[in-house]
Amino acid sequence: MMTEYRPFVPPERTLMGPGPSDVSPQVLNAMCRSTVGHLDPEFIKLMDDTKRLLQYAFQTANPLTMPISAPGSAGMEACFVNLVEPGDKVIVCINGVFGQRMAENVVRCQATPILVEDPWGTQTDPDKVEQALKAHPDAKILAFVHAETSTGVRNDAKALCALARQYHCLTIMDAVTSLGGIEVDIDGWQVDAAYSGSQKCLSCVPGLSPVTFSQRAVELIQNRKTPVQSWFLDMNLIVGYWGQGGKRAYHHTAPVNSIYALYESLRILHAEGLAASWQRHHRCHQKLVNGLAAIGLDMAVDEHYRLPQLNSVLVPENINEAEIRQRLLNEFNLEIGAGLGKLAGRVWRIGLMGYGCSDKNVDYCLSSLSTVMN
Amino acid sequence: MMTEYRPFVPPERTLMGPGPSDVSPQVLNAMCRSTVGHLDPEFIKLMDDTKRLLQYAFQTANPLTMPISAPGSAGMEACFVNLVEPGDKVIVCINGVFGQRMAENVVRCQATPILVEDPWGTQTDPDKVEQALKAHPDAKILAFVHAETSTGVRNDAKALCALARQYHCLTIMDAVTSLGGIEVDIDGWQVDAAYSGSQKCLSCVPGLSPVTFSQRAVELIQNRKTPVQSWFLDMNLIVGYWGQGGKRAYHHTAPVNSIYALYESLRILHAEGLAASWQRHHRCHQKLVNGLAAIGLDMAVDEHYRLPQLNSVLVPENINEAEIRQRLLNEFNLEIGAGLGKLAGRVWRIGLMGYGCSDKNVDYCLSSLSTVMN
Repeated sequence: MMTEYRPFVPPERTLMGPGPSDVSPQVLNAMCRSTVGHLDPEFIKLMDDTKRLLQYAFQTANPLTMPISAPGSAGMEACFVNLVEPGDKVIVCINGVFGQRMAENVVRCQATPILVEDPWGTQTDPDKVEQALKAHPDAKILAFVHAETSTGVRNDAKALCALARQYHCLTIMDAVTSLGGIEVDIDGWQVDAAYSGSQKCLSCVPGLSPVTFSQRAVELIQNRKTPVQSWFLDMNLIVGYWGQGGKRAYHHTAPVNSIYALYESLRILHAEGLAASWQRHHRCHQKLVNGLAAIGLDMAVDEHYRLPQLNSVLVPENINEAEIRQRLLNEFNLEIGAGLGKLAGRVWRIGLMGYGCSDKNVDYCLSSLSTVMN
Repeated sequence: MMTEYRPFVPPERTLMGPGPSDVSPQVLNAMCRSTVGHLDPEFIKLMDDTKRLLQYAFQTANPLTMPISAPGSAGMEACFVNLVEPGDKVIVCINGVFGQRMAENVVRCQATPILVEDPWGTQTDPDKVEQALKAHPDAKILAFVHAETSTGVRNDAKALCALARQYHCLTIMDAVTSLGGIEVDIDGWQVDAAYSGSQKCLSCVPGLSPVTFSQRAVELIQNRKTPVQSWFLDMNLIVGYWGQGGKRAYHHTAPVNSIYALYESLRILHAEGLAASWQRHHRCHQKLVNGLAAIGLDMAVDEHYRLPQLNSVLVPENINEAEIRQRLLNEFNLEIGAGLGKLAGRVWRIGLMGYGCSDKNVDYCLSSLSTVMN
């Protein structure tokens, strides 16, 4: 007997976890338009516009700004495999899952990670970073996470970049959860390489990772002593397809429809304006925090370095956190996130990202939470 | 003054190049349904069904069968970085662009490729492969391309796999353009690792690469002496998310909507049946070949090993091949492919893949070509 497979009709969730966030219907509609070839002249124009919009979002004039055709973890890997060579020293700031993942990437490049560790839920301490920079004058790169999705902490990107330059290091910054939700100023802070994700504050579908590389980073990549260990992520090759100029050489088949979606999500961000988007994230965050306090729930992260788009909420004693999430999902079609790594079981993570960062979602989350907690 | 960005409305092309192929409206509709979380229980059920359908398409019982969250080039890299270690010898059959790319992957794994080269447009010669296997008894893997998209040649996968086993080699097979269009029999041929692409005969949107690994391959991966150089493509980690069993651990955020699309495209293939799909590809191919002959165009590849889904057509003398393609695109919204690498300027590549492999497309292509050639 032949198995029957039925069409998949997903439930209509409200996505308030750590991502993917709610995708705007406008983005979904853009994505399902007819596929064109990855070398079609109309698609190449779209690629150019997408690059310009990414430069806007990242606040950079870097010509090498484009989406990697894979999720944020691949964007992270693209930054490390292109900039790091075997034997290099890389200072990695760790105060959550994604800092750890950076260190793992350094090891896989046969380089040495110098770890600067701070407790999960607190900021990376710039003093410790400076000590590490002093202790390792041969370090080539300082790597850190701007918005730690696993904890809800904002690291001080501007200060860390200034330190890196003072000690002649390049910087790699994880901007997966920050881009579009809080200020990201690639050129102002002089970040050398950054990667983001489509599915956080851009509210696009998951699967793409915008990246940007400074001129210093490009020179370093061009002057490597060893080949980039990944063929798929080798920027020397990718630039032939995504780079400037008329002729686009085939490297891999771009995820055409996902680029439609990314373009549309960036178009929405551009129309709203970066500052307005940051302000909206801040305002909804305040409303959420106040509402949570009213039902007796405390935030896990100090307000001075708390992310508006990723809210870590302390699970009260004697509460089965998994059961609460399950009930929100089953009874309210509402997804919030569990704690990750060291914070598993201790916090919930409530995302207010992009399209999903709205009064409507805050109200719904507070009302649903308060119902299931009673 | 602020730049204005307008919605992108793609032209309605007929895609008869080397891929992406025409995507079924049914697949596009499935893709733009509401995004759910990548750990949502409903999504996890969809992952399981997608794996089962991929096992059907690959004709395998391999538990480790799943889509890589990136295009075919990343699927290729996933096979090489997981199976190859520094210092290994890998025999690579080259008779087109994608065999070359395989050799490039071997080099980036710090291993040694042993090249078995045949002229572009002809088959890999099993005798030469056997000589290489005899000359290199320490070779660990035999790698070859089943359907060379750059030339339109089908290599004899069954014979090559039999040789590999005879000489105690594992096999890596590129099935990017073959899967769904001609017979692919992973278990029957005892292929150890294979990768495909979503945008060829599956007629899904570009961006995903289905892969499958045999038990022998899994054991080899589990017993590596060195870590997999790619964190993103490390099957030891990916299996925690896509593997068997109840608990799914976060590795990266899956491209949720693209998986909706892949599932739908596989559902369509399953409903038609593999044999019926292969037959349809064969029938449309014959019709195309006959029609091309009638307008004086010859095939570049011998009929004994010609791919039905990728037709390399010789460009007649004194014809500007690029101008013909341009006119087809501009006047008929019809995309056919240029020659790639050594065949650039010498052939056109006409794809008949999946949903785009239809009488309607063959008729349209023949009529448009005959108009612009006159």
